Amino acid sequence: MSTTQSFNMVLFGGTGDLVMRKLLPALYQAHRSGSLGVGRILCLGRRDFSQDDYLSQVTGKAKEFLPKSDWSDEVWATFAARIAYVKVDAENAEDYPALKTAVDEVPAEVTVYYLSTSPSLFTGICQNLAAQQMNGDNVRVVLEKPLGHDLSSSNEINQSVGRFFKENQIYRIDHYLGKESVQNLMALRFGNALFDPLWRREWISDVQITIAEEVGIEKRGGFYDHTGALKDMVQNHLLQMLCFVAMEPPFSLDSDAIRDEKLKVLRALVPYSQEDVLTKTVRGQYKAGASRGQPVVGYLQEDGVATESKTETFVALRCEIANWRWAGVPFFLRTGKRMADRLAEIVINFRDVPHQIFPAPGGISSPNKLVIRLQPEEHMKLYFLAKAPGDNMRLQQVHLDLDFAASSSIRRADAYERLLLDTIRGNLSLFVRQDELEQAWKWVEPIMSVWSQDGSAPKPYTAGTWGPAASSALLSRDGLSWHEEA
Amino acid sequence: MSTTQSFNMVLFGGTGDLVMRKLLPALYQAHRSGSLGVGRILCLGRRDFSQDDYLSQVTGKAKEFLPKSDWSDEVWATFAARIAYVKVDAENAEDYPALKTAVDEVPAEVTVYYLSTSPSLFTGICQNLAAQQMNGDNVRVVLEKPLGHDLSSSNEINQSVGRFFKENQIYRIDHYLGKESVQNLMALRFGNALFDPLWRREWISDVQITIAEEVGIEKRGGFYDHTGALKDMVQNHLLQMLCFVAMEPPFSLDSDAIRDEKLKVLRALVPYSQEDVLTKTVRGQYKAGASRGQPVVGYLQEDGVATESKTETFVALRCEIANWRWAGVPFFLRTGKRMADRLAEIVINFRDVPHQIFPAPGGISSPNKLVIRLQPEEHMKLYFLAKAPGDNMRLQQVHLDLDFAASSSIRRADAYERLLLDTIRGNLSLFVRQDELEQAWKWVEPIMSVWSQDGSAPKPYTAGTWGPAASSALLSRDGLSWHEEA
Repeated sequence: MSTTQSFNMVLFGGTGDLVMRKLLPALYQAHRSGSLGVGRILCLGRRDFSQDDYLSQVTGKAKEFLPKSDWSDEVWATFAARIAYVKVDAENAEDYPALKTAVDEVPAEVTVYYLSTSPSLFTGICQNLAAQQMNGDNVRVVLEKPLGHDLSSSNEINQSVGRFFKENQIYRIDHYLGKESVQNLMALRFGNALFDPLWRREWISDVQITIAEEVGIEKRGGFYDHTGALKDMVQNHLLQMLCFVAMEPPFSLDSDAIRDEKLKVLRALVPYSQEDVLTKTVRGQYKAGASRGQPVVGYLQEDGVATESKTETFVALRCEIANWRWAGVPFFLRTGKRMADRLAEIVINFRDVPHQIFPAPGGISSPNKLVIRLQPEEHMKLYFLAKAPGDNMRLQQVHLDLDFAASSSIRRADAYERLLLDTIRGNLSLFVRQDELEQAWKWVEPIMSVWSQDGSAPKPYTAGTWGPAASSALLSRDGLSWHEEA
Repeated sequence: MSTTQSFNMVLFGGTGDLVMRKLLPALYQAHRSGSLGVGRILCLGRRDFSQDDYLSQVTGKAKEFLPKSDWSDEVWATFAARIAYVKVDAENAEDYPALKTAVDEVPAEVTVYYLSTSPSLFTGICQNLAAQQMNGDNVRVVLEKPLGHDLSSSNEINQSVGRFFKENQIYRIDHYLGKESVQNLMALRFGNALFDPLWRREWISDVQITIAEEVGIEKRGGFYDHTGALKDMVQNHLLQMLCFVAMEPPFSLDSDAIRDEKLKVLRALVPYSQEDVLTKTVRGQYKAGASRGQPVVGYLQEDGVATESKTETFVALRCEIANWRWAGVPFFLRTGKRMADRLAEIVINFRDVPHQIFPAPGGISSPNKLVIRLQPEEHMKLYFLAKAPGDNMRLQQVHLDLDFAASSSIRRADAYERLLLDTIRGNLSLFVRQDELEQAWKWVEPIMSVWSQDGSAPKPYTAGTWGPAASSALLSRDGLSWHEEA
């Protein structure tokens, strides 16, 4: 589906990592597949690059980050012709008239300002744009995370951006929501009657959502040590994924119909008491270990990390949703750095049969489960028990596989590609609304505050493992365990 | 699971087709895999074969009907050593003392008499066995179909066999029940909670059960012309398969627990009024056409068929089960000879979503379905809608596959192998109880009688097709259509 409105896509932070590694490659893919419609891409930076200098940089990076098979010199040339480098210091109001001139040079139906900058610049940029009347109804502004570091700083950003842009002009990006699997979860749940009767407390024993990274904090020690896994991953990505699992059927695919339902889930999340934080959350911090067979240092030895830092690099939470559909069903969220594997997945464990007439198959804890893998590959597996081949009646666990990639020769859009096109198309359904963001922070804050008051340190875990033992214990108290691929 | 009791397996009709093509190869497979325990196989025939003559015949046939990869001269030699040919005229009471001597020669805990003969001999054989006190508690008798040609003839067989054997000694074989897929249907339904909420009228729109044969009546014209598809296939195989789909969860895997539930289904089948027979049944008869690209004659041109025969070679029925679980859900049964393909399958069509929020995918009649294939291969497919790859939100039908054979390297037992072992093990659960048989006949009789009173002929259909057009019309009145593999 090509974008139909002509556009100007303006990328603040045009010389930054995100633009080079993700946004321009994603736009190239859209261009190449014919879905990028008519429009220009303006890349902004403070430095005095010539157009050629900038393009040669961009070309080099794009070649590095795009799959070889998707690269074409000719297609790239037609794509590069759509890019213009514009020297703009985002913090300098005096640069904005020139930006306005550059944008107005080719009038377009839609202008998107993608703020791929530090959040500390968001307010200033919006103010500067508004000062030049560059915030009309046809303008959209895209905000990258982190959107604040707590409820009040997040509200501050929302309020200041909100002074210059209406809510329906603001696209808060959460790239996990752009993944094919998240959309497929919607398709499965609401495009089929099949899963509907199952998708509730009567049939589901627990839900597990994991985003595990193999990498450590890389070169982001300074940033990460002030953030930690809870704010970096749980408050946004994990809670958003939880919303898509738990939401009621929206009455339409309309952005607000979907976001209203997500908000209801966030509001129904049972708030943590101080006691809950102590018993239902686990925080960890990696110590030296191994990753992919190579020795790696512990978190405290990483550059930019305070000597006695208590920042968590791992979080596991047990939460509940207090509504008719989910009451009593534990949702376990887990994320960490330096884990044993890199993966993002949603596991729906179904309840066991009420009365077993078959000889119990040994060692299978949750025989019926649906596993939706978002990363590294995107696929779905439905596990259940079938008769073991042979002439006696014995059950064994089997699974039905759906490999989203293999099921079609059509290239899947990358998360950023989809979301960028959505900003042009004006489709807000995969972007986070202000009230959702606020509610997510509200729910997370008690955890933050108990942890910061609490003198104790995060539980250490060896790099390259699945986190501290307390993470398993969190589930075993319910007689459950984390899903592991057989 | 090897049989644990020592046995004598006595095969009446030892020189017949079934013994040669099916039973001895099945016993060989069980022997080869180590599940045949300790026991002998006595093959009975009227003719004066020497042991060597008989064995050389058997060996030739077995080599022909067993998969090459399963054949081993050495294993066959050890198997053949377990076979003894005994000259017995089943109809001659004077031959039975010799049979008794042969059976008693090696005493065994269990003796199985497998009556692979014309049903007209059943009573005589049982009587002759009883006259020699060969019907003790450790004796089982296996009856092959056809078990009568109507309710009264079936009752007659049951009553006369029942005079000499108790019900729990009588193994009425329906080889479709020995198929892995039928057992897997039990495993799916009752080993998993996953399918339980779906398996009822609220979520299932219709059920379709098909046994289609590519062959015509082969050399069985004389038999077939007095039988027809209704008695040959519907009254037994199709109704039995329907029972496994529709039954309530049995409280255990105990034979009678299962058969009680099947009986309840048969009893709940809505009886046909005369009007119903005219509107809810379709009978057909093949005319000349093509099979696998070769021209074939019509039914009336087959040897042994009466000139103006009205025997049906095709049946389609629409039936309903009047109970809480199934009220209002049509069950369509279909079987025929000279069909477009050879297959046996059960199709569960689930209802559509109550409210569609996605752009409707074109041309998909039943987006959610479970297809259980019994023949030629045994597998399962679960169809549903997923998001079509690409950056827009469009649904497409996909399916999850479970190939029972591929999912394991373990050889699957052939239906006869499993059932033969069950006769030795004393497991009646896959055999048809007298009251089930009676109830099936009772339900089928009104169809038979309306058809025979009705002067009209079966609807012609071209050999190599899916039967008369009326078969499709039977479903389209409900807005439905027969499942076809995409």
